[in-house]
Amino acid sequence: MRCPFISSFIILRCANGTYKHCSIVQYSMHHIDVRVEKDIFDVNNRIARENASHFRAHGVRAIDLLGAIGSGKTALIEKIVPVLKERGIRSGAIAGDCYGDDDFQRIRVLGIPVVNANTGKECHLDAHLVEHAAEGLPLDEIDLLFIENVGNMVCPTDFLLGAEKRVVIVSTTEGDDVVNKHPMMFRGCDIGIINKVDLAPLVGASLDRMEADMRRYNPAMKICRTDLKKGEGLGAVIDALLAEQSS
Amino acid sequence: MRCPFISSFIILRCANGTYKHCSIVQYSMHHIDVRVEKDIFDVNNRIARENASHFRAHGVRAIDLLGAIGSGKTALIEKIVPVLKERGIRSGAIAGDCYGDDDFQRIRVLGIPVVNANTGKECHLDAHLVEHAAEGLPLDEIDLLFIENVGNMVCPTDFLLGAEKRVVIVSTTEGDDVVNKHPMMFRGCDIGIINKVDLAPLVGASLDRMEADMRRYNPAMKICRTDLKKGEGLGAVIDALLAEQSS
Repeated sequence: MRCPFISSFIILRCANGTYKHCSIVQYSMHHIDVRVEKDIFDVNNRIARENASHFRAHGVRAIDLLGAIGSGKTALIEKIVPVLKERGIRSGAIAGDCYGDDDFQRIRVLGIPVVNANTGKECHLDAHLVEHAAEGLPLDEIDLLFIENVGNMVCPTDFLLGAEKRVVIVSTTEGDDVVNKHPMMFRGCDIGIINKVDLAPLVGASLDRMEADMRRYNPAMKICRTDLKKGEGLGAVIDALLAEQSS
Repeated sequence: MRCPFISSFIILRCANGTYKHCSIVQYSMHHIDVRVEKDIFDVNNRIARENASHFRAHGVRAIDLLGAIGSGKTALIEKIVPVLKERGIRSGAIAGDCYGDDDFQRIRVLGIPVVNANTGKECHLDAHLVEHAAEGLPLDEIDLLFIENVGNMVCPTDFLLGAEKRVVIVSTTEGDDVVNKHPMMFRGCDIGIINKVDLAPLVGASLDRMEADMRRYNPAMKICRTDLKKGEGLGAVIDALLAEQSS
Protein backbone atom coordinates (compact mmCIF):
# COMPACT_ATOMS: atom_id res chain seq x y z
CA MET A 1 0.00 0.00 0.00
CA ARG A 2 2.79 2.40 0.86
CA CYS A 3 5.08 3.66 -1.84
CA PRO A 4 7.75 6.32 -2.10
CA PHE A 5 6.87 9.89 -2.94
CA ILE A 6 8.72 13.15 -3.02
CA SER A 7 9.38 14.97 0.21
CA SER A 8 11.07 18.29 -0.58
CA PHE A 9 13.53 18.38 2.31
CA ILE A 10 14.00 17.82 6.01
CA ILE A 11 14.74 20.97 8.01
CA LEU A 12 17.03 20.49 10.98
CA ARG A 13 17.62 23.35 13.33
CA CYS A 14 21.23 23.33 14.44
CA ALA A 15 22.75 24.15 17.82
CA ASN A 16 23.78 27.64 16.74
CA GLY A 17 20.19 28.50 15.83
CA THR A 18 20.56 28.20 12.06
CA TYR A 19 18.55 25.83 9.92
CA LYS A 20 20.02 23.10 7.80
CA HIS A 21 18.11 21.93 4.75
CA CYS A 22 18.73 18.30 3.84
CA SER A 23 17.43 17.70 0.33
CA ILE A 24 15.80 14.37 -0.19
CA VAL A 25 14.60 14.19 -3.75
CA GLN A 26 12.37 11.40 -4.98
CA TYR A 27 12.74 9.44 -1.82
CA SER A 28 10.19 7.82 0.46
CA MET A 29 8.83 9.91 3.33
CA HIS A 30 7.99 6.69 5.09
CA HIS A 31 11.52 5.42 4.80
CA ILE A 32 12.84 8.66 6.25
CA ASP A 33 10.37 8.20 9.10
CA VAL A 34 11.95 4.86 9.80
CA ARG A 35 15.52 6.16 9.74
CA VAL A 36 14.75 9.08 12.02
CA GLU A 37 12.82 6.73 14.28
CA LYS A 38 15.78 4.36 14.50
CA ASP A 39 17.92 7.14 15.87
CA ILE A 40 15.22 8.23 18.30
CA PHE A 41 14.75 4.66 19.51
CA ASP A 42 18.48 4.21 20.02
CA VAL A 43 18.60 7.30 22.21
CA ASN A 44 15.42 6.31 24.03
CA ASN A 45 16.72 2.81 24.71
CA ARG A 46 19.93 4.19 26.14
CA ILE A 47 18.04 6.44 28.55
CA ALA A 48 15.69 3.55 29.41
CA ARG A 49 18.70 1.45 30.45
CA GLU A 50 19.94 4.34 32.58
CA ASN A 51 16.48 4.67 34.17
CA ALA A 52 16.44 0.92 34.94
CA SER A 53 19.84 1.18 36.56
CA HIS A 54 18.77 4.26 38.53
CA PHE A 55 15.61 2.53 39.77
CA ARG A 56 17.56 -0.58 40.82
CA ALA A 57 20.06 1.54 42.72
CA HIS A 58 17.18 2.93 44.79
CA GLY A 59 15.50 -0.44 45.28
CA VAL A 60 12.58 0.56 43.06
CA ARG A 61 10.79 -1.96 40.87
CA ALA A 62 9.10 -0.04 38.04
CA ILE A 63 6.02 -1.21 36.14
CA ASP A 64 5.09 0.23 32.74
CA LEU A 65 1.29 0.20 32.67
CA LEU A 66 -0.10 0.27 29.14
CA GLY A 67 -3.57 0.18 27.62
CA ALA A 68 -6.22 2.21 25.82
CA ILE A 69 -8.14 5.08 27.32
CA GLY A 70 -10.54 3.71 29.95
CA SER A 71 -9.07 0.21 30.03
CA GLY A 72 -8.52 0.41 33.79
CA LYS A 73 -4.92 1.55 34.30
CA THR A 74 -5.77 4.10 36.99
CA ALA A 75 -8.40 1.77 38.48
CA LEU A 76 -5.72 -0.90 38.88
CA ILE A 77 -3.51 1.53 40.79
CA GLU A 78 -6.47 2.62 42.95
CA LYS A 79 -7.32 -0.93 43.90
CA ILE A 80 -3.86 -2.41 44.22
CA VAL A 81 -2.10 0.28 46.26
CA PRO A 82 -4.06 -0.32 49.50
CA VAL A 83 -3.57 -4.10 49.21
CA LEU A 84 0.17 -3.65 48.67
CA LYS A 85 0.29 -1.27 51.63
CA GLU A 86 -1.21 -3.98 53.86
CA ARG A 87 1.69 -6.19 52.78
CA GLY A 88 4.19 -3.47 53.64
CA ILE A 89 4.96 -2.64 50.03
CA ARG A 90 5.27 1.09 49.35
CA SER A 91 3.90 2.32 46.01
CA GLY A 92 4.60 5.39 43.94
CA ALA A 93 3.31 6.53 40.56
CA ILE A 94 3.90 8.61 37.46
CA ALA A 95 0.57 9.59 35.89
CA GLY A 96 1.09 9.98 32.16
CA ASP A 97 -1.47 11.76 30.00
CA CYS A 98 -1.48 14.09 27.03
CA TYR A 99 -3.32 16.70 28.97
CA GLY A 100 -4.97 17.38 32.31
CA ASP A 101 -4.59 15.81 35.71
CA ASP A 102 -7.65 13.55 36.00
CA ASP A 103 -5.60 10.41 36.67
CA PHE A 104 -3.09 12.27 38.82
CA GLN A 105 -5.86 13.52 41.12
CA ARG A 106 -7.30 10.02 41.48
CA ILE A 107 -3.90 8.64 42.45
CA ARG A 108 -2.98 11.54 44.73
CA VAL A 109 -5.84 10.80 47.12
CA LEU A 110 -4.33 7.35 47.70
CA GLY A 111 -1.63 9.11 49.71
CA ILE A 112 1.32 7.85 47.69
CA PRO A 113 4.04 9.90 45.98
CA VAL A 114 2.86 10.71 42.45
CA VAL A 115 4.02 12.99 39.64
CA ASN A 116 1.80 14.20 36.80
CA ALA A 117 3.51 13.82 33.42
CA ASN A 118 1.69 15.62 30.61
CA THR A 119 3.07 14.89 27.17
CA GLY A 120 1.23 17.68 25.39
CA LYS A 121 0.54 16.35 21.92
CA GLU A 122 2.67 13.24 22.31
CA CYS A 123 0.94 9.89 22.27
CA HIS A 124 3.31 8.04 24.59
CA LEU A 125 5.73 8.47 27.45
CA ASP A 126 9.40 8.16 26.60
CA ALA A 127 12.41 7.32 28.75
CA HIS A 128 13.55 10.92 28.83
CA LEU A 129 10.23 12.13 30.20
CA VAL A 130 10.25 9.37 32.81
CA GLU A 131 13.82 10.23 33.79
CA HIS A 132 12.73 13.75 34.68
CA ALA A 133 9.40 12.72 36.22
CA ALA A 134 11.33 10.40 38.56
CA GLU A 135 13.33 13.39 39.79
CA GLY A 136 10.13 14.54 41.50
CA LEU A 137 9.71 11.28 43.43
CA PRO A 138 11.30 10.13 46.73
CA LEU A 139 12.65 6.92 45.18
CA ASP A 140 14.13 5.62 48.43
CA GLU A 141 10.61 5.52 49.87
CA ILE A 142 9.12 3.57 46.95
CA ASP A 143 9.21 -0.19 46.39
CA LEU A 144 6.88 -0.46 43.41
CA LEU A 145 6.59 2.41 40.93
CA PHE A 146 3.59 2.39 38.59
CA ILE A 147 4.30 4.32 35.41
CA GLU A 148 0.88 4.87 33.89
CA ASN A 149 1.44 5.41 30.19
CA VAL A 150 -0.73 7.51 27.86
CA GLY A 151 -3.92 5.70 26.86
CA ASN A 152 -2.91 4.29 23.49
CA MET A 153 -2.49 0.78 22.15
CA VAL A 154 0.04 1.59 19.44
CA CYS A 155 2.72 4.18 20.02
CA PRO A 156 3.91 3.42 23.57
CA THR A 157 4.99 -0.08 22.57
CA ASP A 158 8.14 1.19 20.88
CA PHE A 159 9.32 3.36 23.77
CA LEU A 160 10.89 1.43 26.62
CA LEU A 161 10.96 3.42 29.84
CA GLY A 162 13.32 1.38 31.99
CA ALA A 163 10.59 -0.62 33.73
CA GLU A 164 11.16 -4.12 35.07
CA LYS A 165 7.85 -5.34 33.64
CA ARG A 166 5.39 -4.13 31.04
CA VAL A 167 1.71 -4.71 31.75
CA VAL A 168 -1.09 -4.21 29.22
CA ILE A 169 -4.69 -3.83 30.33
CA VAL A 170 -7.56 -4.30 27.90
CA SER A 171 -11.23 -3.92 28.63
CA THR A 172 -13.97 -6.15 27.24
CA THR A 173 -15.74 -2.96 26.16
CA GLU A 174 -12.96 -2.39 23.60
CA GLY A 175 -14.29 -5.39 21.69
CA ASP A 176 -12.91 -8.91 21.76
CA ASP A 177 -10.88 -8.21 18.61
CA VAL A 178 -8.74 -5.66 20.46
CA VAL A 179 -5.91 -8.13 21.04
CA ASN A 180 -5.83 -9.37 17.46
CA LYS A 181 -5.55 -5.79 16.21
CA HIS A 182 -2.43 -5.02 18.28
CA PRO A 183 0.17 -7.77 17.98
CA MET A 184 3.09 -5.47 18.80
CA MET A 185 1.58 -4.47 22.13
CA PHE A 186 1.01 -8.02 23.32
CA ARG A 187 4.33 -9.35 22.07
CA GLY A 188 6.09 -6.63 24.04
CA CYS A 189 4.36 -7.07 27.41
CA ASP A 190 4.94 -9.53 30.25
CA ILE A 191 1.49 -9.44 31.81
CA GLY A 192 -1.91 -9.10 30.11
CA ILE A 193 -4.98 -8.12 32.10
CA ILE A 194 -8.50 -8.55 30.70
CA ASN A 195 -10.60 -6.07 32.66
CA LYS A 196 -14.34 -5.34 32.96
CA VAL A 197 -15.14 -9.04 32.64
CA ASP A 198 -18.55 -8.23 34.16
CA LEU A 199 -19.46 -6.18 31.08
CA ALA A 200 -18.43 -8.87 28.57
CA PRO A 201 -21.96 -10.27 28.14
CA LEU A 202 -23.40 -6.76 27.71
CA VAL A 203 -21.02 -5.89 24.87
CA GLY A 204 -20.94 -9.39 23.36
CA ALA A 205 -17.22 -9.92 24.01
CA SER A 206 -15.68 -13.39 24.25
CA LEU A 207 -13.12 -13.54 27.06
CA ASP A 208 -11.83 -16.80 25.61
CA ARG A 209 -11.12 -15.20 22.25
CA MET A 210 -9.21 -12.37 23.93
CA GLU A 211 -7.16 -14.79 26.00
CA ALA A 212 -6.50 -17.10 23.04
CA ASP A 213 -5.26 -14.14 20.96
CA MET A 214 -2.93 -13.12 23.80
CA ARG A 215 -1.50 -16.65 24.01
CA ARG A 216 -1.08 -16.78 20.24
CA TYR A 217 0.92 -13.54 20.16
CA ASN A 218 2.83 -14.17 23.38
CA PRO A 219 2.80 -17.72 24.80
CA ALA A 220 4.87 -16.59 27.80
CA MET A 221 2.42 -13.86 28.80
CA LYS A 222 0.90 -14.09 32.25
CA ILE A 223 -2.82 -13.50 31.76
CA CYS A 224 -5.25 -12.28 34.44
CA ARG A 225 -8.97 -11.52 34.32
CA THR A 226 -10.30 -8.72 36.50
CA ASP A 227 -13.31 -6.64 37.43
CA LEU A 228 -11.36 -3.75 38.86
CA LYS A 229 -14.46 -1.75 39.74
CA LYS A 230 -15.21 -4.46 42.32
CA GLY A 231 -11.52 -5.26 42.89
CA GLU A 232 -11.97 -8.84 41.69
CA GLY A 233 -8.97 -10.75 40.37
CA LEU A 234 -6.37 -8.59 42.10
CA GLY A 235 -4.57 -11.50 43.78
CA ALA A 236 -3.31 -12.99 40.53
CA VAL A 237 -2.25 -9.56 39.29
CA ILE A 238 -0.21 -8.91 42.42
CA ASP A 239 1.43 -12.32 42.19
CA ALA A 240 2.37 -11.63 38.58
CA LEU A 241 3.69 -8.14 39.37
CA LEU A 242 5.83 -9.33 42.26
CA ALA A 243 7.20 -12.44 40.54
CA GLU A 244 10.98 -12.15 40.32
CA GLN A 245 11.02 -13.39 36.75
CA SER A 246 8.36 -12.93 34.11
CA SER A 247 6.69 -16.29 33.63
CA MET B 1 9.35 18.74 31.78
CA ARG B 2 11.05 18.38 28.42
CA CYS B 3 14.53 19.75 27.95
CA PRO B 4 17.26 19.40 25.33
CA PHE B 5 19.64 16.47 25.37
CA ILE B 6 22.26 15.07 23.10
CA SER B 7 21.17 13.11 20.06
CA SER B 8 24.25 11.82 18.25
CA PHE B 9 23.02 12.28 14.69
CA ILE B 10 20.15 11.81 12.32
CA ILE B 11 20.72 9.26 9.58
CA LEU B 12 19.06 10.00 6.27
CA ARG B 13 19.20 7.47 3.50
CA CYS B 14 19.68 9.26 0.19
CA ALA B 15 18.23 8.49 -3.21
CA ASN B 16 21.40 6.79 -4.40
CA GLY B 17 21.28 4.33 -1.51
CA THR B 18 24.00 5.95 0.59
CA TYR B 19 23.45 7.22 4.12
CA LYS B 20 23.96 10.80 5.17
CA HIS B 21 24.85 11.51 8.78
CA CYS B 22 23.66 14.90 9.99
CA SER B 23 25.46 15.69 13.22
CA ILE B 24 23.31 17.40 15.80
CA VAL B 25 25.34 17.91 18.91
CA GLN B 26 23.77 19.05 22.13
CA TYR B 27 20.48 19.72 20.57
CA SER B 28 16.95 18.71 21.54
CA MET B 29 15.61 15.45 20.12
CA HIS B 30 12.14 16.80 20.71
CA HIS B 31 12.82 19.91 18.69
CA ILE B 32 14.06 17.79 15.81
CA ASP B 33 10.85 15.78 16.09
CA VAL B 34 8.90 18.96 15.60
CA ARG B 35 10.86 20.11 12.55
CA VAL B 36 10.60 16.73 10.85
CA GLU B 37 6.91 16.63 11.70
CA LYS B 38 6.34 20.03 10.15
CA ASP B 39 7.69 18.77 6.85
CA ILE B 40 5.61 15.61 7.06
CA PHE B 41 2.45 17.57 7.88
CA ASP B 42 3.02 19.93 4.96
CA VAL B 43 3.26 17.01 2.57
CA ASN B 44 0.28 15.26 4.19
CA ASN B 45 -1.87 18.39 3.98
CA ARG B 46 -1.07 18.80 0.29
CA ILE B 47 -2.15 15.24 -0.45
CA ALA B 48 -5.24 15.69 1.75
CA ARG B 49 -6.27 18.68 -0.39
CA GLU B 50 -5.77 16.58 -3.50
CA ASN B 51 -7.86 13.78 -2.00
CA ALA B 52 -10.66 16.23 -1.17
CA SER B 53 -10.61 17.53 -4.72
CA HIS B 54 -10.59 13.97 -6.11
CA PHE B 55 -13.54 12.97 -3.92
CA ARG B 56 -15.53 16.06 -4.95
CA ALA B 57 -14.88 15.36 -8.62
CA HIS B 58 -16.52 11.95 -8.17
CA GLY B 59 -19.43 13.29 -6.09
CA VAL B 60 -18.12 11.54 -2.98
CA ARG B 61 -18.57 13.06 0.48
CA ALA B 62 -15.89 11.58 2.74
CA ILE B 63 -16.17 11.25 6.52
CA ASP B 64 -13.09 10.76 8.72
CA LEU B 65 -14.29 8.55 11.58
CA LEU B 66 -12.09 8.86 14.66
CA GLY B 67 -12.12 7.38 18.15
CA ALA B 68 -10.45 4.92 20.49
CA ILE B 69 -10.47 1.17 20.07
CA GLY B 70 -13.98 -0.12 20.75
CA SER B 71 -15.65 3.30 20.79
CA GLY B 72 -18.13 2.23 18.11
CA LYS B 73 -16.67 3.36 14.78
CA THR B 74 -17.44 0.09 12.98
CA ALA B 75 -20.76 -0.26 14.82
CA LEU B 76 -21.78 3.15 13.50
CA ILE B 77 -21.04 2.04 9.94
CA GLU B 78 -22.94 -1.23 10.50
CA LYS B 79 -26.04 0.56 11.75
CA ILE B 80 -26.03 3.60 9.48
CA VAL B 81 -25.38 2.00 6.09
CA PRO B 82 -28.76 0.20 5.84
CA VAL B 83 -30.63 3.36 6.89
CA LEU B 84 -28.76 5.42 4.31
CA LYS B 85 -29.50 2.78 1.69
CA GLU B 86 -33.25 3.14 2.38
CA ARG B 87 -32.82 6.83 1.61
CA GLY B 88 -31.04 6.05 -1.66
CA ILE B 89 -27.62 7.07 -0.36
CA ARG B 90 -24.81 4.73 -1.42
CA SER B 91 -22.05 4.13 1.13
CA GLY B 92 -18.47 2.97 0.82
CA ALA B 93 -15.71 2.49 3.37
CA ILE B 94 -12.01 2.34 4.06
CA ALA B 95 -11.32 0.17 7.12
CA GLY B 96 -8.16 1.43 8.79
CA ASP B 97 -6.33 -0.68 11.34
CA CYS B 98 -2.78 -1.39 12.33
CA TYR B 99 -3.23 -5.05 11.69
CA GLY B 100 -5.84 -7.63 10.73
CA ASP B 101 -9.16 -7.39 8.97
CA ASP B 102 -11.69 -7.63 11.81
CA ASP B 103 -13.41 -4.35 10.95
CA PHE B 104 -13.08 -4.94 7.20
CA GLN B 105 -14.92 -8.25 7.50
CA ARG B 106 -17.73 -6.67 9.52
CA ILE B 107 -18.18 -3.96 6.89
CA ARG B 108 -17.84 -6.31 3.91
CA VAL B 109 -20.97 -8.24 4.87
CA LEU B 110 -22.97 -5.00 4.56
CA GLY B 111 -22.55 -5.37 0.80
CA ILE B 112 -20.86 -2.01 0.21
CA PRO B 113 -17.50 -1.34 -1.46
CA VAL B 114 -14.79 -1.47 1.21
CA VAL B 115 -10.98 -1.53 1.25
CA ASN B 116 -8.87 -2.78 4.16
CA ALA B 117 -6.04 -0.37 4.99
CA ASN B 118 -3.48 -1.83 7.38
CA THR B 119 -0.93 0.66 8.62
CA GLY B 120 1.45 -1.91 10.11
CA LYS B 121 3.02 -0.18 13.09
CA GLU B 122 1.56 3.23 12.32
CA CYS B 123 -0.97 4.68 14.72
CA HIS B 124 -3.01 6.67 12.22
CA LEU B 125 -4.11 6.83 8.63
CA ASP B 126 -2.47 9.50 6.51
CA ALA B 127 -3.58 11.19 3.32
CA HIS B 128 -1.15 9.19 1.22
CA LEU B 129 -2.51 5.87 2.49
CA VAL B 130 -6.07 7.06 1.85
CA GLU B 131 -5.12 8.23 -1.65
CA HIS B 132 -4.06 4.70 -2.54
CA ALA B 133 -6.89 2.98 -0.65
CA ALA B 134 -9.36 5.04 -2.67
CA GLU B 135 -7.86 3.62 -5.88
CA GLY B 136 -9.48 0.33 -4.89
CA LEU B 137 -12.97 1.83 -4.63
CA PRO B 138 -15.58 2.54 -7.36
CA LEU B 139 -15.90 6.20 -6.37
CA ASP B 140 -18.61 6.96 -8.94
CA GLU B 141 -20.86 4.47 -7.15
CA ILE B 142 -20.33 5.98 -3.69
CA ASP B 143 -22.12 8.99 -2.19
CA LEU B 144 -20.82 8.80 1.39
CA LEU B 145 -17.37 7.34 2.09
CA PHE B 146 -16.64 6.35 5.68
CA ILE B 147 -12.91 6.41 6.38
CA GLU B 148 -12.55 4.49 9.63
CA ASN B 149 -9.33 5.64 11.20
CA VAL B 150 -7.05 3.59 13.47
CA GLY B 151 -8.41 3.37 17.02
CA ASN B 152 -6.42 6.11 18.71
CA MET B 153 -7.38 9.39 20.36
CA VAL B 154 -4.08 11.19 19.82
CA CYS B 155 -2.11 10.68 16.64
CA PRO B 156 -4.79 10.76 13.92
CA THR B 157 -5.78 14.31 14.86
CA ASP B 158 -2.77 15.80 13.11
CA PHE B 159 -3.23 13.94 9.83
CA LEU B 160 -5.98 15.34 7.63
CA LEU B 161 -7.17 12.85 5.04
CA GLY B 162 -9.21 15.04 2.70
CA ALA B 163 -12.56 14.31 4.37
CA GLU B 164 -15.45 16.78 4.32
CA LYS B 165 -16.17 16.19 8.00
CA ARG B 166 -14.33 14.71 10.96
CA VAL B 167 -16.38 12.73 13.46
CA VAL B 168 -15.11 11.53 16.83
CA ILE B 169 -16.88 8.74 18.72
CA VAL B 170 -16.27 8.20 22.41
CA SER B 171 -17.75 5.50 24.57
CA THR B 172 -18.92 5.99 28.15
CA THR B 173 -16.79 2.96 29.04
CA GLU B 174 -13.69 5.03 28.28
CA GLY B 175 -14.48 7.08 31.39
CA ASP B 176 -16.18 10.47 31.49
CA ASP B 177 -12.78 12.20 31.60
CA VAL B 178 -11.94 10.98 28.10
CA VAL B 179 -12.95 14.28 26.49
CA ASN B 180 -11.01 16.43 28.94
CA LYS B 181 -7.88 14.37 28.27
CA HIS B 182 -7.94 14.97 24.51
CA PRO B 183 -8.51 18.63 23.68
CA MET B 184 -6.81 18.38 20.26
CA MET B 185 -9.18 15.67 19.10
CA PHE B 186 -12.34 17.54 20.01
CA ARG B 187 -11.14 20.90 18.71
CA GLY B 188 -10.41 19.27 15.37
CA CYS B 189 -13.73 17.47 14.81
CA ASP B 190 -17.10 18.68 13.53
CA ILE B 191 -19.31 16.05 15.14
CA GLY B 192 -18.93 14.35 18.54
CA ILE B 193 -20.81 11.15 19.32
CA ILE B 194 -21.16 9.84 22.87
CA ASN B 195 -21.81 6.12 22.46
CA LYS B 196 -22.81 3.27 24.81
CA VAL B 197 -25.02 5.62 26.81
CA ASP B 198 -26.76 2.51 28.17
CA LEU B 199 -23.54 1.49 29.98
CA ALA B 200 -22.96 4.91 31.58
CA PRO B 201 -24.59 3.99 34.91
CA LEU B 202 -22.66 0.71 35.06
CA VAL B 203 -19.28 2.43 34.68
CA GLY B 204 -20.22 5.53 36.65
CA ALA B 205 -19.83 7.91 33.70
CA SER B 206 -21.57 11.28 33.58
CA LEU B 207 -22.92 11.99 30.09
CA ASP B 208 -23.36 15.62 31.07
CA ARG B 209 -19.70 16.00 31.97
CA MET B 210 -18.65 14.48 28.64
CA GLU B 211 -20.95 16.79 26.72
CA ALA B 212 -19.92 19.86 28.73
CA ASP B 213 -16.24 19.11 28.06
CA MET B 214 -16.98 18.79 24.33
CA ARG B 215 -18.77 22.16 24.32
CA ARG B 216 -15.92 23.75 26.25
CA TYR B 217 -13.30 22.59 23.76
CA ASN B 218 -15.45 23.11 20.67
CA PRO B 219 -18.59 25.23 21.04
CA ALA B 220 -19.49 24.63 17.38
CA MET B 221 -19.40 20.84 17.69
CA LYS B 222 -22.59 18.98 16.86
CA ILE B 223 -23.05 16.48 19.71
CA CYS B 224 -25.09 13.27 19.54
CA ARG B 225 -25.75 10.54 22.09
CA THR B 226 -26.13 6.98 20.87
CA ASP B 227 -26.56 3.37 21.86
CA LEU B 228 -25.27 1.92 18.62
CA LYS B 229 -25.75 -1.67 19.72
CA LYS B 230 -29.49 -0.99 19.67
CA GLY B 231 -29.23 1.59 16.88
CA GLU B 232 -30.59 4.35 19.09
CA GLY B 233 -29.78 7.98 18.29
CA LEU B 234 -28.95 7.34 14.63
CA GLY B 235 -31.33 10.00 13.28
CA ALA B 236 -29.41 12.91 14.74
CA VAL B 237 -26.10 11.44 13.56
CA ILE B 238 -27.38 11.12 10.00
CA ASP B 239 -28.70 14.68 10.04
CA ALA B 240 -25.32 15.92 11.25
CA LEU B 241 -23.42 13.89 8.66
CA LEU B 242 -25.57 15.06 5.78
CA ALA B 243 -25.69 18.73 6.80
CA GLU B 244 -24.15 20.83 4.05
CA GLN B 245 -22.17 22.93 6.49
CA SER B 246 -20.84 21.95 9.89
CA SER B 247 -23.08 23.57 12.46
